[in-house]
Parts: sequence; C-alpha cells; structure tokens
Amino acid sequence: MTQRVTTLRWQGDFDGHLVLLDQTLLPGELREIECRTVEQVWQAIRRLSVRGAPAIGCAAAYGVCIGVQAAVESDIEEMRHRIVEVCEYLATSRPTAINLFWALERMGATAQRGEASDPRNLADILLAEARAIHDEDRETCDAIGRHGADLLADLPSGSGILTHCNAGALATGGDGTALSVVFELARRGKRPHVWVDETRPLLQGARLTAWELIERDVDCTLICDNMAGAVMRKGKVQAVVTGADRIAANGDAANKIGTYGVAVLAQAHGIPFYIAAPASTFDLALATGDEIPIEERSAEEVTRGFGMATSPAEVKVFNPAFDVTPAKLIAGLITDRGIVTRPDTAGVATLLRDDIGSD
Amino acid sequence: MTQRVTTLRWQGDFDGHLVLLDQTLLPGELREIECRTVEQVWQAIRRLSVRGAPAIGCAAAYGVCIGVQAAVESDIEEMRHRIVEVCEYLATSRPTAINLFWALERMGATAQRGEASDPRNLADILLAEARAIHDEDRETCDAIGRHGADLLADLPSGSGILTHCNAGALATGGDGTALSVVFELARRGKRPHVWVDETRPLLQGARLTAWELIERDVDCTLICDNMAGAVMRKGKVQAVVTGADRIAANGDAANKIGTYGVAVLAQAHGIPFYIAAPASTFDLALATGDEIPIEERSAEEVTRGFGMATSPAEVKVFNPAFDVTPAKLIAGLITDRGIVTRPDTAGVATLLRDDIGSD
Repeated sequence: MTQRVTTLRWQGDFDGHLVLLDQTLLPGELREIECRTVEQVWQAIRRLSVRGAPAIGCAAAYGVCIGVQAAVESDIEEMRHRIVEVCEYLATSRPTAINLFWALERMGATAQRGEASDPRNLADILLAEARAIHDEDRETCDAIGRHGADLLADLPSGSGILTHCNAGALATGGDGTALSVVFELARRGKRPHVWVDETRPLLQGARLTAWELIERDVDCTLICDNMAGAVMRKGKVQAVVTGADRIAANGDAANKIGTYGVAVLAQAHGIPFYIAAPASTFDLALATGDEIPIEERSAEEVTRGFGMATSPAEVKVFNPAFDVTPAKLIAGLITDRGIVTRPDTAGVATLLRDDIGSD
Repeated sequence: MTQRVTTLRWQGDFDGHLVLLDQTLLPGELREIECRTVEQVWQAIRRLSVRGAPAIGCAAAYGVCIGVQAAVESDIEEMRHRIVEVCEYLATSRPTAINLFWALERMGATAQRGEASDPRNLADILLAEARAIHDEDRETCDAIGRHGADLLADLPSGSGILTHCNAGALATGGDGTALSVVFELARRGKRPHVWVDETRPLLQGARLTAWELIERDVDCTLICDNMAGAVMRKGKVQAVVTGADRIAANGDAANKIGTYGVAVLAQAHGIPFYIAAPASTFDLALATGDEIPIEERSAEEVTRGFGMATSPAEVKVFNPAFDVTPAKLIAGLITDRGIVTRPDTAGVATLLRDDIGSD
C-alpha cells in the first residue's frame, strides 16, 4: 500500500510544499492535496485530511517549514519570530494529540539553537528537522511492531485482535502503531484476524483500517462499534490493540472516542487490552488522564455523517472526539522503547528515562 | 405525536388493509405505506418499515387478517388451512422478536377455537383479535410506564437515563416500553434527561428515539454508541432502560445489538440497567439466552447505510441485529405485570404465574 499512496510527503526543497492523502475521501477516492500555506496545513489537520497523532506531528513539522518560507528574505530575528508565530498557530489546530505539540516544540527548539547562519540556512535546517521527525516516525513504527509482536508471540495462529479507529500507516509517517503490531504478526506467519470497529462518527475503522488491512492482505471483519461486546462474548477476540493520542504520566491514555468502552468490555471478558504508541505520545506534565484536554467536534459529524440527515435537525448532540482509558484497564503500553506492563507512574518514568532502551 | 402519526392502524373492516408509518424514512419524511397483501406485510417487517417487538406482533396479527381475505369466499376448513399457511409464512419474516410468534400463535389459536359459523364470520373474529392485541398493547405500555416510574421514583429530578435503539411509540402499539417509563417520569414532573445511543447500523436511536423525545418535549442528547462509556464516566447517567425482543426463562434478554455492551458499561459504573418489556416478550421454552436465535442482517446495512459507501466494497462484515444481556447484569425487568428485581428463573416464573398481578 505504501507503494501506491503515501500518507504525507514533502515535495521539493526548503521552498517546497506538503502533499497529503486526503483521508476524508477514503476509501472511495484516492486524492492528494497540496498544502502551500500554513493555513492549508492547519485546515488539513483540523478537518482530518491528515489525522492520527504521529501523522499530525509530521504534518505540523512540515507546516512550520511552509510557514517560514515568506520570511526567508528577511533577517534571522524576523525568521525566528515567524517560527514562534507559526508554531503557536499550528498548535491551535487540534487540542488532544500531544504529538502535535511535541513536534512543534522540537521545531521551535531547533530554530532557537542558533546554528543557522542566515534565514535561508535556517529554513534548510528546519526542513531537515521535519524530515528527521518523519523518518524517525517510520523507525518508531517498526520498533513498536517488533515489540508488540514479541509481546503477543504466544497467541495462537489465527487469533482475533480487535482494534478501534485507525492506528495504521495512515495515522503515522510509517507503518502505524497498533497496526504495525498486526503487520509484524502477519509477517511472522501468525495470521491475525482483525476485528475492525467502524468507529463512529467519522468511521476511521471502516474507511481507513479496513482499507489498509485489505490492501495488505490481512484477514479482517468490520463491525459496528456496538458489536464489540458480542464478538468478545463469542470468544473471537484474544487481544485488543489500539493507538493513543496522549498518555499521562500514570499511563492513563486518551484515544479515539469509544476506546474506553472497548477497554471496559475487554476487562469484563478477560481479554488483554494494549495501547501502542511512540514515546512522543507521553505527556509527563499531566499526572493523570483527567487533565488531558478532550476535543469536542461539531454535531454535524453525528447528525449528517453519511451524506444525509440521520436525526432530527434540532437534536442536541455530544460529540467528544476522544476518551480516556485509565491505566488500570491497560495490560501494557507497547512503545518504540519497549513495553510497560500494567502501567503506572513508576513504570512510565522508567521507560522514558531509559534512553539505552531506545530501539 | 400520536396525534400526528400512528405507528400502525387498520383501515376498514375485515376486507380492509394495514397502514404503517414507514420508519425507514424517519425522521426526514413522514410517509405511510399501505399493506394490502400478506407479502407486503412480510416485507414491511423484514425491511423494518415496522419494527420493535410489540409493533411487529401487532403488524403480524393484522397481516393474518389480510392473508385470509382471499379465502373468505371458500369454506371454513379452507379458511383454517389458509390461516395456518399465513401464520407460518409471516413467522419467517424475522427470527428474534418473540412477540411476532406470540401474536401469530394467538391468532392461530383464535381460528382453531371453532366459534366461527362461516369464513366471513371467522375473518371478523380474527380482525377483532388483532384489534384486541393492538389495544392491549396500548394498555401494556401504560402499565410498563407506571411500574417503571414507580421503580425510579427516587431518582432526583433531571436525572440522566440512557437508552439504546428505539423502544418508544414507534416500537409498539402504544407509548412504548422503555420510553413509556421516560414519558411517565416526565408526566410526573421528574424532568428526565435522556442520553440517546444512535444505535448503528440503522440508527433507530438517532432517527426514531430522538425524534419521539423531541416531539414530546423530553430533554435529550444524541450520542454515538461508543460515547456511552464516556458519558457514564462523567456521572451523567443515573439509570439505563432499554426494551427487549425476547427474554429467556432465566431473565437473559435479547435486545438490539449493543445493549449487552451498554449493560457491561453500566455495571462497571454502578449504574442500574433495566429492561422494559411486556409479558409477551418472555419465552419460557428457552432456559437461557444462549438459545435465543439471533438474526444476522446484510453487510450493506454497515457498509453503505446512508446513501454512500463508507468502507471498502470487498470487506467482510459481521452484522448481528441483536445481542443477549445476561440476567446477572440486569437490575430489574420492568413489565406490565410488575417488576422482577435481579431476575432469575424463579423470579420470572413468579411474575408470569401471577395472573392476579396483571395490571
């Protein structure tokens, strides 16, 4: 699939542009969009043309490169001022995924390091940093896949793995987080069968995850979100693996709305529930998941998501884009640096302190 | 609302026809369809123009009246033979809701009682029986509402009640089962706030329940099914009330897919989970819910439900229309004959034996 389309790519040099696969049109249409202004990048993130915490981070990093292009003819101070502005602006695109802020802070820190001789040189340095974030994300995805497949090595061949939303190649600069684990299991001949929650309201499971799995010849079955309990009760699910948008210091994890319900169901059925995410998803500034800001999105995503009105026009809607799964429901955090089993504050701190453990 | 539209009604005498509100078009369009052949009734049930266990029972009873019209000119034996045929045919329309079979058996038993002097007279008797089933369902709904509101009398005003699918006037010949409880609470000034699960794949919550509640001025908020856990975790839900399509002798209850997941979530949050259903929903021939046949419906309901394809065309889909909530997750069965608290085989038997308790 990565041969056919790419979630995001930079085209050209420092004065180039960002090309995104417009994920709002999948699976019906494979159309790329070009972002040549920082406002276009902001909109692409906001309207979910690019989505998934790691991919948002990559897109935002490239967005900084676009945002400073107009300042290349000015002086280095003006350039640095512009970088701060652009980072602040892009940070307002979506509130929950920490990778967005992580990538912007990394770009900002790069700009402040003072290595640049002139604005043009700084633009080159920023582009190199954005490319590095993107490249590292590919390696990060691979490492998550290996660690996760090691963790699930004892699952019998053909085991059922349930996932929610899309944490695949479309959500990252690489092969995905949760789906990287699935793809690695498949490469190892474990023949995973993936139960794909469709993931209302925007159907990232039905539109994106099912599409990725079919493209990669991984066996899968699509279900509505409310069928996960029935499938588990039938004994069809041996593990749940999802991604995450932000993980607090104690291991509480925010992910796509509905993940919490899946975790409760998994516990009720004795099924291990795993979160797969890069180290950049952790936000140690937040002691618990209660502090994670949860984006609420428009009512129309719920009331007219399928091309027609599916509820009374005047109905009140609650549409949180994420929920928080408490660490006590999480059997393990699968990261690029290794696994945190039964996560808690100490386990998370150990993982993130241990740079030697980096894969 | 019942002034504006009626879920179903019989038009004319023994040679009349059934008029149904086509619920597949709600809330966008209020269109009635006329059933003048038994095949049209079968199709209306099958394609969910009429749905909800009690309403299916009423529609099937009228369907028998339509089915025998052609035999009115024959003799009484031919007429009785035709009744058996029609009942067997209508029984194949949908497998899970027991009220369908209950109503058909009642119509068949009426025909066999031998009171009829001639085919025309038998047709009149059958229509009277169908009308009785319909009328009794209205009273049954009222009784469920009263018993449920008594049970929930201690809830503070403004409490949150979560419901799944549609168990309202559109699902019955009266005011509903679960929603009858809500409407009675509203009449008693308790100002319930209803959290409406949209109920994929066919969105009976978004399309039907939200519409009924708004029409009746009951405060409500629409959510996607996968948001129920987040809403519960916020402390917004004080009770869950749903309908049922079939209840086994031990109190296990089949209802719209996703009900089981809601019950698991309710238990995890210490929220009482209630089933509201008429006595005709019990199937004492089945010891437990494991024996309840679960209808599986077409993949297209999931993959292209609302005017556009929302997943890859070649994806495998699992689309069970119902799931079974084990009795141990049910705080009480709210019936027209009273409440079965913490249901089990003994409690259900006592309820159904106690004819004096009939309301």
